[in-house]
Amino acid sequence: MTSLNDLPIRDDLRGREPYGAPQLDVAVRLNTNENPYPPSPRLVKALGEAVAEVAGSLNRYPDRDAVALRADLADFLNADTPGAGLTAERVWAANGSNEIIQQILQAFGGPGRRALGFEPSYSMHPIITHVSGTAWIDAQRDEDFGLDPERAVAAVEAHRPDIVFLTSPNNPTGTALPPEAIEAILEVAPGMVVVDEAYGEFRREDTLSSLELLPDHPRLIVTRTMSKAFAMAGTRLGYLAADPAVIEALLLVRLPYHLSAVTQAVARTALAHSEELLGTVDTLRHERDLLVGWLRSQGLRVADSDANFVLFGTFADRRRVWRAVLDQGVLIREVGPPEWLRVSIGTSEETATFRSALTTALKEAQ
Amino acid sequence: MTSLNDLPIRDDLRGREPYGAPQLDVAVRLNTNENPYPPSPRLVKALGEAVAEVAGSLNRYPDRDAVALRADLADFLNADTPGAGLTAERVWAANGSNEIIQQILQAFGGPGRRALGFEPSYSMHPIITHVSGTAWIDAQRDEDFGLDPERAVAAVEAHRPDIVFLTSPNNPTGTALPPEAIEAILEVAPGMVVVDEAYGEFRREDTLSSLELLPDHPRLIVTRTMSKAFAMAGTRLGYLAADPAVIEALLLVRLPYHLSAVTQAVARTALAHSEELLGTVDTLRHERDLLVGWLRSQGLRVADSDANFVLFGTFADRRRVWRAVLDQGVLIREVGPPEWLRVSIGTSEETATFRSALTTALKEAQ
Repeated sequence: MTSLNDLPIRDDLRGREPYGAPQLDVAVRLNTNENPYPPSPRLVKALGEAVAEVAGSLNRYPDRDAVALRADLADFLNADTPGAGLTAERVWAANGSNEIIQQILQAFGGPGRRALGFEPSYSMHPIITHVSGTAWIDAQRDEDFGLDPERAVAAVEAHRPDIVFLTSPNNPTGTALPPEAIEAILEVAPGMVVVDEAYGEFRREDTLSSLELLPDHPRLIVTRTMSKAFAMAGTRLGYLAADPAVIEALLLVRLPYHLSAVTQAVARTALAHSEELLGTVDTLRHERDLLVGWLRSQGLRVADSDANFVLFGTFADRRRVWRAVLDQGVLIREVGPPEWLRVSIGTSEETATFRSALTTALKEAQ
Repeated sequence: MTSLNDLPIRDDLRGREPYGAPQLDVAVRLNTNENPYPPSPRLVKALGEAVAEVAGSLNRYPDRDAVALRADLADFLNADTPGAGLTAERVWAANGSNEIIQQILQAFGGPGRRALGFEPSYSMHPIITHVSGTAWIDAQRDEDFGLDPERAVAAVEAHRPDIVFLTSPNNPTGTALPPEAIEAILEVAPGMVVVDEAYGEFRREDTLSSLELLPDHPRLIVTRTMSKAFAMAGTRLGYLAADPAVIEALLLVRLPYHLSAVTQAVARTALAHSEELLGTVDTLRHERDLLVGWLRSQGLRVADSDANFVLFGTFADRRRVWRAVLDQGVLIREVGPPEWLRVSIGTSEETATFRSALTTALKEAQ
């Protein structure tokens, strides 16, 4: 029998493990920051109809440039951030924001080039960077998971990376970056600056989106996803907003017909129902703030969160706490800095179950 | 205004054009080797229902490893090629065979490695190779677009590539490779050997599939797609069969959750209707053979075809013939060797329109 080690895989892949949170069949899944509210029966019906409508021509290739979908996404972003001034030619879409990130690295990174990020942050940034043959530099976040503008600027000036990755709100910490930090980095970055706003719709009232900075910064890319607030993780639709020239660059590396006719139809239908889909965001924000308060009342440390999850700790043996919570039917995530755990915001019932499970787990640990 | 040249794209992308056949709105489209027969109303209904069924949980991420779909694909391949002995763990799926090819290059190619192909062949092989940072070697097909086993073996021995790409039936020539050639290459190749069988289902009766060679060759990968014979180009579902260790290798580079819940549901539904979808293959093969005969009767050269398209020529100015055919509402493809044109097999009405348009075009050219 052939084993992986017998195959001529790239040397730098040897010994690696596939990325991915365990997909376990438990009652309460609070591990991948999904929106817990499923689409309504009305939307389910509309999605089935939308697919039936395109199904009659599935023997044909889809629109390679997904222009209608990109126009809809631009409209959505303009409503999210008035003044963003977006159009289809300033928006690009792909199969999840992972593919968006991969295309950015293929166009602006690659062998001999470097990408810099501030960890702990979204762990796929360094992984996709690595697979694209780009070198990764971890310039680290501050102790409180924030990013001091002066220190960030110094890191960018010291390393002169081809791509800077910023995540705001940050995953897995929930921390939003102040616009001053992002603007200061844009001022000095010699290459592209990517702000990953996968959790952008969950930001608190006074937190700005980097979409506002786009008009003045042609090397800024803001990425978004329909997987989180938009409650469409199963659809796999990531997108970005940037200068039209950036999208021209991505056309040189994107796989032709990367986005299926079905995905385009489903995403457009979801966007037409964005009021329903985003209708749960306020509820989730409220639940998040309650959970942060409760965790702190238990004497735990909790990172400020602008997202739909909360990072809390610290635990000398987080694996033990994670396991004890799982034993009670609640799956959370062992991710990020070593003494912390991350929990997604579920329905209020799910959050109550988590609180109870954690209470028991903490008692056991004493 | 920012132009593409102002951006810090990879140096080797400068001056490149995006890949892609023109997507023109004409009456008869015979340019991208689509199956001209759309899904039946019965299948359209089933596809809408299948998506409505998964739509209720689209807020959740899909099965990351698409196990049920891979099992269905294995069943389909076992029926296509008895004795292939495939199971879910020997099959992998992605968004189109382009993504399959990209994942193979990311796992087995990359900076410092080399892929070798025999051109003219599928033009995405060198393009994706290039974007992955892998060097490309063109060892060229024979004059008649075939591949002499001895010469092929000599090329592989001389260059010792990490990956060999073979396309059978070949695109854009339609030429199938004899199993002796493929076996001879497998014998000497130091790395992986990929046989791209995108058009495999159209092969003539006495042409074998490389799936038969899998049990004895752990470094062989056979790729397929649902875009061609399967009449599902709009679904974007490519797949491969290989040793389980090869799939383990691809898990190290695949983007997590690359295949949406919707794509998995649509592909599984199509596979459950494979009898209908592949019911047109015999008709298309018959139309192909008729068209080859007709083109030869017009004094043209035509490559033998095991696919759903025909390469014909030769023309001192193929662009002029292509344009004259297009002016009559028939879009064919200017691709492959410089004096040849490629036409996909459409319905018999579409093929009749093409014959008439070409007749006029050739008269004009005289």
